[in-house]
Amino acid sequence: MFFEGSEKKVEVTVTEHAPNLRSLGHDFWTDIVEHSRAEIISSSHNDACDAYVLSESSLFVWDRRFLMITCGETTLVDGVLRFLQEISASNIALVRYQRKNEYRPRLQPSSFEDDIARLHQVLPGKAFRVGYLDSHYYNIFHTAHPYQAHPDDTVCELLMYHICGPVADYLKQQGQTREGVRERLQLHKLFEGYQLDDHVFEPVGYSLNAIRGPFYATLHVTPQTTNSYVSFETNNPSDAENNHILSRLLELLQPVSWNVMGFNCQPVMPERPNMMRLGANEWTLDCGYRVLYHHYQQSDQCDVYSFDL
Amino acid sequence: MFFEGSEKKVEVTVTEHAPNLRSLGHDFWTDIVEHSRAEIISSSHNDACDAYVLSESSLFVWDRRFLMITCGETTLVDGVLRFLQEISASNIALVRYQRKNEYRPRLQPSSFEDDIARLHQVLPGKAFRVGYLDSHYYNIFHTAHPYQAHPDDTVCELLMYHICGPVADYLKQQGQTREGVRERLQLHKLFEGYQLDDHVFEPVGYSLNAIRGPFYATLHVTPQTTNSYVSFETNNPSDAENNHILSRLLELLQPVSWNVMGFNCQPVMPERPNMMRLGANEWTLDCGYRVLYHHYQQSDQCDVYSFDL
Repeated sequence: MFFEGSEKKVEVTVTEHAPNLRSLGHDFWTDIVEHSRAEIISSSHNDACDAYVLSESSLFVWDRRFLMITCGETTLVDGVLRFLQEISASNIALVRYQRKNEYRPRLQPSSFEDDIARLHQVLPGKAFRVGYLDSHYYNIFHTAHPYQAHPDDTVCELLMYHICGPVADYLKQQGQTREGVRERLQLHKLFEGYQLDDHVFEPVGYSLNAIRGPFYATLHVTPQTTNSYVSFETNNPSDAENNHILSRLLELLQPVSWNVMGFNCQPVMPERPNMMRLGANEWTLDCGYRVLYHHYQQSDQCDVYSFDL
Repeated sequence: MFFEGSEKKVEVTVTEHAPNLRSLGHDFWTDIVEHSRAEIISSSHNDACDAYVLSESSLFVWDRRFLMITCGETTLVDGVLRFLQEISASNIALVRYQRKNEYRPRLQPSSFEDDIARLHQVLPGKAFRVGYLDSHYYNIFHTAHPYQAHPDDTVCELLMYHICGPVADYLKQQGQTREGVRERLQLHKLFEGYQLDDHVFEPVGYSLNAIRGPFYATLHVTPQTTNSYVSFETNNPSDAENNHILSRLLELLQPVSWNVMGFNCQPVMPERPNMMRLGANEWTLDCGYRVLYHHYQQSDQCDVYSFDL
């Protein structure tokens, strides 16, 4: 029952000379998603954004940017390279490609190093890792040509490992419903004013896309017992809203460990009992993003698992 | 310049009906080591034990037991299976096969699950993991048939990640000498009364085997910059001696994180400034070992590495 929740992620921004990305149509994006070995499950739309729930995470498309997040054993880099075939590299303003450490890297079709070697052939770039290889770490590639992100061009991520407590117990159960998840995670309160599109997976698992104007929020739950994982991210630049959401998600999901990543965003971590900060760093990418990385863990006892032989 | 320091390890105990393992001769052990894709570099001997420094870690052979530890991209399980071909499975009292999480599991020729599936076909067993898949963890397999370890049958391990400070700086330099390492690590003091056999690797790296009667101590240094690793272990059952050695090694090598594993052994961790205990567990294996697992980290800032593209 292993499923890799940990995600690969790409954000591609095109220049004003590129076609409007939303006008490329459903078949175009279906093709990109299929090259990543995922499928479109449902979609929602507003004036600024098209949001797709995927069989493995999410895709958001704006006029001049798209964001794709894929978990499991997907090949996101193939989707990106397919996109770059269709949209000339000269129309690309910025590619930011990211991979968090996986629970089981051996099951992945490629490593981050493999992926960026291929991207780098098409679009020269720079790559960084924050954190240690024997623990949590985050890999980031971005294209090398000049780009200056606007200070309001933000992303705030919360990545939670080994969720515990009554909400986690519900999410780990088969037979969960969309309403059951929405109620327990208080999604209507957390994402007030957002249009919600969500999906409950068989036998377990849950994905949410939420859009409000140009802002998205997305939540993915991989509740598998020995390797549960929940990710949240948003481009809403409101520190107050983000601090509230992060705080509530940590209270509800009680992860053993978690990461906070900010791109031009400075979420304040609420103090929790027995919380330890294992890592912290801040640095600036040439493309204009101030990156913040925090890694926390509860000082809990760790588990012993017996293997089936 | 990546080299995987993290080790695979096997301890095989034979019954009184098996041939004396030391009498099997140098060619026999050379063959076992070669099946593990390593080589014998040097050896030392006393009345109880033959000790071999390997191109990747160490081998110790007693009359009724052997211990092999291999790092890098070795295939220790092939060495074990080769041994089991030569020495009938009916002569095996206990096999304990262990793997710590690697820095780069994708570069390994097999996973722990692959290895134990093969061992299990020859010798039914049980397997456990302690710790979390997204951080440090330790895998243990042992054979299932009845065995009762003597309380003095102990192993104490200290596994150190990301060493820092002046001794670490020396170990990371090319041109280090055996005498230079011995002096900086105070090995004559730490292993008083032991016969030492050590090797300095090119361009960096150091291995030490130390034997005193039936007791061994072994130290392996993989100082590569982004993934330094130092392991120490001994079967000396003296808590006082072990506590002293662990305490000195931590002071000298200043690792960012470390694990202590005890098999019928309870080392006391010295309190160090900014030390956090991330995990702790104790449980008993059916074969009679009380296993203790501790995971510690200094509350330091974490690093950002840039990749070469």
